[in-house]
Amino acid sequence: MQPQPTIRLSLPSKGRLESDSLDFLSAAGLRVFKPNPRQYQAEVPALPELGIIFQRPADIVVSVRQGSVDFGITGIDVLEEKRGDNGNIIVLHDTLGFGHCSLKLAVPESWSDVTDIPSLKKFASTFDRPLRVATKFPVLTERFLSQKDIPHTLISAEGTLETAPTLGYADIISDLVSSGQTLKDNRLRALPDGLVQPSQAALIANRKSLQTNPNALEMARRLLEYIEAHLRAKDNLLVIANMRGESPEALAQKLFAETSVGGLQGPTISPVIVRDAAQKWFSVSVVVRRDYLPRAITELRNIGGSGIIVSPVTYIFEEEPPRYKAMLAALK
Amino acid sequence: MQPQPTIRLSLPSKGRLESDSLDFLSAAGLRVFKPNPRQYQAEVPALPELGIIFQRPADIVVSVRQGSVDFGITGIDVLEEKRGDNGNIIVLHDTLGFGHCSLKLAVPESWSDVTDIPSLKKFASTFDRPLRVATKFPVLTERFLSQKDIPHTLISAEGTLETAPTLGYADIISDLVSSGQTLKDNRLRALPDGLVQPSQAALIANRKSLQTNPNALEMARRLLEYIEAHLRAKDNLLVIANMRGESPEALAQKLFAETSVGGLQGPTISPVIVRDAAQKWFSVSVVVRRDYLPRAITELRNIGGSGIIVSPVTYIFEEEPPRYKAMLAALK
Amino acid sequence: MQPQPTIRLSLPSKGRLESDSLDFLSAAGLRVFKPNPRQYQAEVPALPELGIIFQRPADIVVSVRQGSVDFGITGIDVLEEKRGDNGNIIVLHDTLGFGHCSLKLAVPESWSDVTDIPSLKKFASTFDRPLRVATKFPVLTERFLSQKDIPHTLISAEGTLETAPTLGYADIISDLVSSGQTLKDNRLRALPDGLVQPSQAALIANRKSLQTNPNALEMARRLLEYIEAHLRAKDNLLVIANMRGESPEALAQKLFAETSVGGLQGPTISPVIVRDAAQKWFSVSVVVRRDYLPRAITELRNIGGSGIIVSPVTYIFEEEPPRYKAMLAALK
Amino acid sequence: MQPQPTIRLSLPSKGRLESDSLDFLSAAGLRVFKPNPRQYQAEVPALPELGIIFQRPADIVVSVRQGSVDFGITGIDVLEEKRGDNGNIIVLHDTLGFGHCSLKLAVPESWSDVTDIPSLKKFASTFDRPLRVATKFPVLTERFLSQKDIPHTLISAEGTLETAPTLGYADIISDLVSSGQTLKDNRLRALPDGLVQPSQAALIANRKSLQTNPNALEMARRLLEYIEAHLRAKDNLLVIANMRGESPEALAQKLFAETSVGGLQGPTISPVIVRDAAQKWFSVSVVVRRDYLPRAITELRNIGGSGIIVSPVTYIFEEEPPRYKAMLAALK
Amino acid sequence: MQPQPTIRLSLPSKGRLESDSLDFLSAAGLRVFKPNPRQYQAEVPALPELGIIFQRPADIVVSVRQGSVDFGITGIDVLEEKRGDNGNIIVLHDTLGFGHCSLKLAVPESWSDVTDIPSLKKFASTFDRPLRVATKFPVLTERFLSQKDIPHTLISAEGTLETAPTLGYADIISDLVSSGQTLKDNRLRALPDGLVQPSQAALIANRKSLQTNPNALEMARRLLEYIEAHLRAKDNLLVIANMRGESPEALAQKLFAETSVGGLQGPTISPVIVRDAAQKWFSVSVVVRRDYLPRAITELRNIGGSGIIVSPVTYIFEEEPPRYKAMLAALK
Amino acid sequence: MQPQPTIRLSLPSKGRLESDSLDFLSAAGLRVFKPNPRQYQAEVPALPELGIIFQRPADIVVSVRQGSVDFGITGIDVLEEKRGDNGNIIVLHDTLGFGHCSLKLAVPESWSDVTDIPSLKKFASTFDRPLRVATKFPVLTERFLSQKDIPHTLISAEGTLETAPTLGYADIISDLVSSGQTLKDNRLRALPDGLVQPSQAALIANRKSLQTNPNALEMARRLLEYIEAHLRAKDNLLVIANMRGESPEALAQKLFAETSVGGLQGPTISPVIVRDAAQKWFSVSVVVRRDYLPRAITELRNIGGSGIIVSPVTYIFEEEPPRYKAMLAALK
Repeated sequence: MQPQPTIRLSLPSKGRLESDSLDFLSAAGLRVFKPNPRQYQAEVPALPELGIIFQRPADIVVSVRQGSVDFGITGIDVLEEKRGDNGNIIVLHDTLGFGHCSLKLAVPESWSDVTDIPSLKKFASTFDRPLRVATKFPVLTERFLSQKDIPHTLISAEGTLETAPTLGYADIISDLVSSGQTLKDNRLRALPDGLVQPSQAALIANRKSLQTNPNALEMARRLLEYIEAHLRAKDNLLVIANMRGESPEALAQKLFAETSVGGLQGPTISPVIVRDAAQKWFSVSVVVRRDYLPRAITELRNIGGSGIIVSPVTYIFEEEPPRYKAMLAALK
Repeated sequence: MQPQPTIRLSLPSKGRLESDSLDFLSAAGLRVFKPNPRQYQAEVPALPELGIIFQRPADIVVSVRQGSVDFGITGIDVLEEKRGDNGNIIVLHDTLGFGHCSLKLAVPESWSDVTDIPSLKKFASTFDRPLRVATKFPVLTERFLSQKDIPHTLISAEGTLETAPTLGYADIISDLVSSGQTLKDNRLRALPDGLVQPSQAALIANRKSLQTNPNALEMARRLLEYIEAHLRAKDNLLVIANMRGESPEALAQKLFAETSVGGLQGPTISPVIVRDAAQKWFSVSVVVRRDYLPRAITELRNIGGSGIIVSPVTYIFEEEPPRYKAMLAALK
Repeated sequence: MQPQPTIRLSLPSKGRLESDSLDFLSAAGLRVFKPNPRQYQAEVPALPELGIIFQRPADIVVSVRQGSVDFGITGIDVLEEKRGDNGNIIVLHDTLGFGHCSLKLAVPESWSDVTDIPSLKKFASTFDRPLRVATKFPVLTERFLSQKDIPHTLISAEGTLETAPTLGYADIISDLVSSGQTLKDNRLRALPDGLVQPSQAALIANRKSLQTNPNALEMARRLLEYIEAHLRAKDNLLVIANMRGESPEALAQKLFAETSVGGLQGPTISPVIVRDAAQKWFSVSVVVRRDYLPRAITELRNIGGSGIIVSPVTYIFEEEPPRYKAMLAALK
Repeated sequence: MQPQPTIRLSLPSKGRLESDSLDFLSAAGLRVFKPNPRQYQAEVPALPELGIIFQRPADIVVSVRQGSVDFGITGIDVLEEKRGDNGNIIVLHDTLGFGHCSLKLAVPESWSDVTDIPSLKKFASTFDRPLRVATKFPVLTERFLSQKDIPHTLISAEGTLETAPTLGYADIISDLVSSGQTLKDNRLRALPDGLVQPSQAALIANRKSLQTNPNALEMARRLLEYIEAHLRAKDNLLVIANMRGESPEALAQKLFAETSVGGLQGPTISPVIVRDAAQKWFSVSVVVRRDYLPRAITELRNIGGSGIIVSPVTYIFEEEPPRYKAMLAALK
Repeated sequence: MQPQPTIRLSLPSKGRLESDSLDFLSAAGLRVFKPNPRQYQAEVPALPELGIIFQRPADIVVSVRQGSVDFGITGIDVLEEKRGDNGNIIVLHDTLGFGHCSLKLAVPESWSDVTDIPSLKKFASTFDRPLRVATKFPVLTERFLSQKDIPHTLISAEGTLETAPTLGYADIISDLVSSGQTLKDNRLRALPDGLVQPSQAALIANRKSLQTNPNALEMARRLLEYIEAHLRAKDNLLVIANMRGESPEALAQKLFAETSVGGLQGPTISPVIVRDAAQKWFSVSVVVRRDYLPRAITELRNIGGSGIIVSPVTYIFEEEPPRYKAMLAALK
Repeated sequence: MQPQPTIRLSLPSKGRLESDSLDFLSAAGLRVFKPNPRQYQAEVPALPELGIIFQRPADIVVSVRQGSVDFGITGIDVLEEKRGDNGNIIVLHDTLGFGHCSLKLAVPESWSDVTDIPSLKKFASTFDRPLRVATKFPVLTERFLSQKDIPHTLISAEGTLETAPTLGYADIISDLVSSGQTLKDNRLRALPDGLVQPSQAALIANRKSLQTNPNALEMARRLLEYIEAHLRAKDNLLVIANMRGESPEALAQKLFAETSVGGLQGPTISPVIVRDAAQKWFSVSVVVRRDYLPRAITELRNIGGSGIIVSPVTYIFEEEPPRYKAMLAALK
């Protein structure tokens, strides 16, 4: 019999954010096992004490705030809209690298004089009533428009906001934008300085749970450990090159002279035994950032590297995860 | 070139309520033509002045209230939740016969002592805090619980409410129920006297539009005319029987003696010419309610009917539609 | 509160047979209302005492035989395979007109010498072992092959039988065939005289239930009444033609002289009032079989018919349904 | 055993045009039975001699032109593009009422000076090369542009033409347009006088087949008979009203005075027997065009009609179908 | 031209078991290539002599028993139900790690006195007839109930067994359970000691084929080699840490003192050349079990490890696969 | 703000070829990010200067030929059909390893005398008209049949060619074949020497773009670098074995004596520190071709290897990619 889960993590229950969360956790070594697609509960075999719950992103914020679940992965957009101000929610990681979108102000394309917030403000002042703004994020939009000092009425809606200006029940919208295609399809244009809230997926926790439940605190450490090691690994590759050289030290000097392949601590160097015993070859291993790979290959070739093998990396662990330390500080 | 639509009717934009609305209008002779599945606008070829817009049910209520659309078909549940109290919305027809559901209070199955509202009240009084009620309908639920004098806290949620008691962030729920299967799957039980709001689809209109725009008023008459004639026809069938008799009047007397086939005004009777000229046969036509059909067949057989043909009816028009008269009264 | 269903009818739970059964009942005026697609129970609003259950076709036969349900619609193929010989099942209607298929013997296309049962028998006698026949219908196949006196071994299988000869675990198959395309795709050929069992959907009942439960007996009468009236109506149309003539009787004589439009009892004839009062016109109504329609139109034109209108018919009721009488006789 | 089909009708093999063709034939009483969704052949139970084949719309034109099939339903767009000039194809019906679209010239929205063909011509003359026009209809587009005397190069493409101007491999497009939404999504604008070819579904036949095969000629008559009777019926309803009056003739005079309910030949009038024998009531039947229904109801009410029943009509047959006569003339 | 497959492996033809089998083989380096989704045959490019066949799980057991295929992957549940007792089937691997489920006895939730097999037996003894048990596994269920000495009647069914107690045609069921949710949805409860048969996917073979066909024997060795190496690798990761130390031997001693990172044979140790030549760093590689990873990271940090890289492992080969040796023994 | 893409790569816009192209690029480290499934444009985050466009395979050839896009991945079949003869297209890589199919001549199965091209020619000479060949590839088919000196007429078609011989509008077909199942379903047979054009996916470029745009040339180098390193890696694995030995050199000699594990440059050898200090163990790393893996494992075991770990390889870079050099030569 497996131990019963006692700590709860809420995940988004539908759409792209659900599949991206599951893919992210799986890639981080925390595959979620959902025995029944109709069920709202699941398990993580690698963390038997952790129970998974599926909820709508906004409900996740509410549940973590109330403490009925300990952890949640949700969007920063709904987090900021719903977190309230009682400090019950602590953000453990706010750049999980998926679920990117932006809450933006968008105006009809036909408003050719409106190109930024100041010109919007000027244009709206010609109306005989406040600017009508349709949104699903009244808290954030209210705050933004008040800061910009634009008189407005908010219109709450549930469905496709983009049609509101065409249908005439709002003048502009404050809505989530990812590629911008839907805005374009509906003849709207986002204002470049109209970014109300940038967003991506974040890991959040209930503050009290971390303060009072040592198991929850240990779970936070584990989750951050896995997530940070995975995120670091995702951007790196293990590069192994064969190189001819006089000695390991001589090779290392050549490598140190190049910018992409110096390595954190220095390269690992092992002998390669070749048929022609007169030659001295070494195998050089070094971790390289994925986006520097083309440069690294060029540099290695420049100093005589050949037969370069590149392998994937699953995790890179450093000292205690910095975000875990940040969390401990925040909990005090 | 077709005339441009100038009157707007909003329909539900997704799920069962969308397809049921489209089926209903089509059966009433008002087929909606949507040139593009991705579009939120459509036309009704039989009513070229009418433009169709697709919105979420709750947004329909907001749009009709504000007057950005003239008419809407939506659920009574969201209508009552969102209509506000300024009298801007007038209900033209509240029994369209589809989209049935009920907003009900449901408690965990395990609360064996709670079988109705009084026992719920008693049980809740043993808590050291108000009853926590999760709902998507805070206005209606607030009104209901206050009338019943039950201390409570409302918890707003977006997703699957039924899991709230299991997850522990609410004690009971106030949620839409159609078959009750989902409640059962989640180990909840609706209270027999916990009906917060019964609901089905309704046709609503913006009061000011009807008062100031004669075209909108005429459209209201047309919509009600078609809808009432269709609803009346749906429940009736045209029954034609061959009967032997001395005279039309003699046959009519026999029919008047039976309860199901007397007809509104009396039966239509035409001669049937048979090969054996000595016999006198007549064809008797009468409109019969669909659910009385088996009884009508038996009665017709009893008085000598045979070769009974039953045909469908598309519309039954009576005098001016009563709901149109009711509307005119309400507009004054 | 609706009355609780007390009589049970089982319908096929998946695939084409399910949708065809639901369409058939709906067309017969007995629409099935399934509140939840995941549920195995449903209702028929027109017959509140009737509860619907969804089962696999073979399980329907078992349930009706055991009496845990009163009525069932299933295929004659599984009925004959599973009905047993205790006489518990009574067949109320065996030509519902959908779900047609045939259980047939099929041999590899490459067996060019095998063109019928006798040549199959001859060919099989050259084997040094009995003919291996894969089937999901061992009872019917056993009976058929024994009658034909062909030595054989039956091989029971669950999946795609058509691949068995290719995979080599059977020589021929005894399988359900509808269009024959699947046989062709798998290089098999049905034998023209290898028809083990023809099949279509049938309505069956538990004998004891009909004998002891008057409600079940009355339900049987209703079901047969609706089904027979619907099946009769499906094949007929109501034809109304305007014709000039001296008198109704004169017109009737012309009609009697034509073969397709004589009518059962004779045509219904009503006067048509035309602008030119000198002409005498009549409207002639007659029920015509759908497949005789083109001929009927030609005949009506021949004798002066014009402006011919054709209308659909929902039911045609005759005297007591003959199958009901047959059932009563079988119950004694 | 059914008779083997000997006459062939090709239908579109995919997309909206396939389902619309099947729906159209079914509504006309010619349901197509396709035993296997993967098969390219089907039958029409009501016309056993007719075999159905499914092909791409353009291949249908080629097959009818070559005579490998006798009849086809396809779009006028591909018909005109591919029919060639040898007169092998004869068009039996060119307004089947579905599959509407238009082949149109569309220019980038940003070409603000180009609003019609003349301004397009002027603008194109400022280029240092002919106008590049992407199209899937080179024959029709070539003809249109030559008539308009616009120098051009045609660019044949297979996929989404609308992206060609954005991608830069054409300046404008000549493409099929139904709702115009796709043009709009791609920032293109159709020119009002740029209609290259209007289109809807048409019934075509091979001329030689009709001239030499009497069975094909008879099939043409049947198809046209069914199709015309169905199209006429689709737009009409049978209206039956109860009216009080002195005599049938008196009622008829009232009806003749109204414009919508006069009827073709005059109304059919039958007596209605009412309980109060002192009153004289009649049932009046008349066929009314569907789009005149609201007016007809008003008129009937004006002259005392009540209890108005409206029934559907399946077919309206008139004299020999005019299009059949037109065909016979064209065959000579 | 590829060599023709001469050895056959049957895989499950539908549902989760099919996709899990394909994923498992693919992860083991034996990707199955199915040129056509409608086909029942496929190839494994890495093993050209192996032909893949898709069958229902129960048909796989029959085919392997008969010898028409050499190998099969199927569930232990159907294997035990259908394997018969002639010893034709030999099980090569019975813990492939997917397709887990259990054949269990389940009783209605309402039977509150029945909590285990003894109380079931007691309760059943109060019936006036044997306990009726619905199942699709009569052989295994018969054996289990007989061992437990419970009088019973088996009821064979094809469809959704879980509804049998509600419908009343059985008292309890013996059915496959994975998550238990379906039982719960149907108000049933599995008995803790009612486990009739645990199951997961297994690799089976025809004994005679292995005894007489050397190619089949070699294929068995290959399949087991790949499968075992894959299963071993799945649970391990390659961990590479940089560590400062006096010498490789000194580092090794530290590692040996820790429980998770000692390695099988000992760690691989290579020098790391750092910029500061005064420091001596080494790279330590060791294979660690995936579920010990967090502990291993902690231990490595404790003894000075940093920059810890974790890489995936595709296979781990040991000596001859133990299961292959077991098979050879069983074949004698 | 990201740099704007200035170089364009067209990918197939639908079906298997689209998903295979995206999978291929992703596996090569060039994941394509498509913000909106409805959009025809996308990005490659790893190559920000590269813009992706989705087009039909044939349109890709046209676009690259015209120069409106710089690079394309498409099938060799449409490339050869549409490339024209002006030398505008240069093929950078013609064996990307996916999208395999063949353009082949296929004849009806019933033509038993036709088994190859010569017998086809002989059979066709008995016709009184040229052989009618249906195809979507007129250029390639024309060329092939002319080379074979077979008199013919080409029939262009759009849809399912395989039905043309059955429908009678062609005698044989020249069509794309992958598994051959569709031919078989339609009773056709490919001729073994009737291979008109073999095909798989290829990377092509516009010659002029490479000659005049240094950024395009650099992009060509990068694409080839990634693609070649990926293709090389796909077929290899990194094998690490622990072996006992006297010295690295002694172990290397043993390895050199085996054929599969010699390595390119020689194996990498590192010491393994074991608990029993008297033993000398080494870790030997070598890259092995995937299809030689079983042999390599056997050889390593033969010379004392144990605990053999196999890891995946992402890229193998050699000197400058040979295809890049070939391209440079071709550009001169």
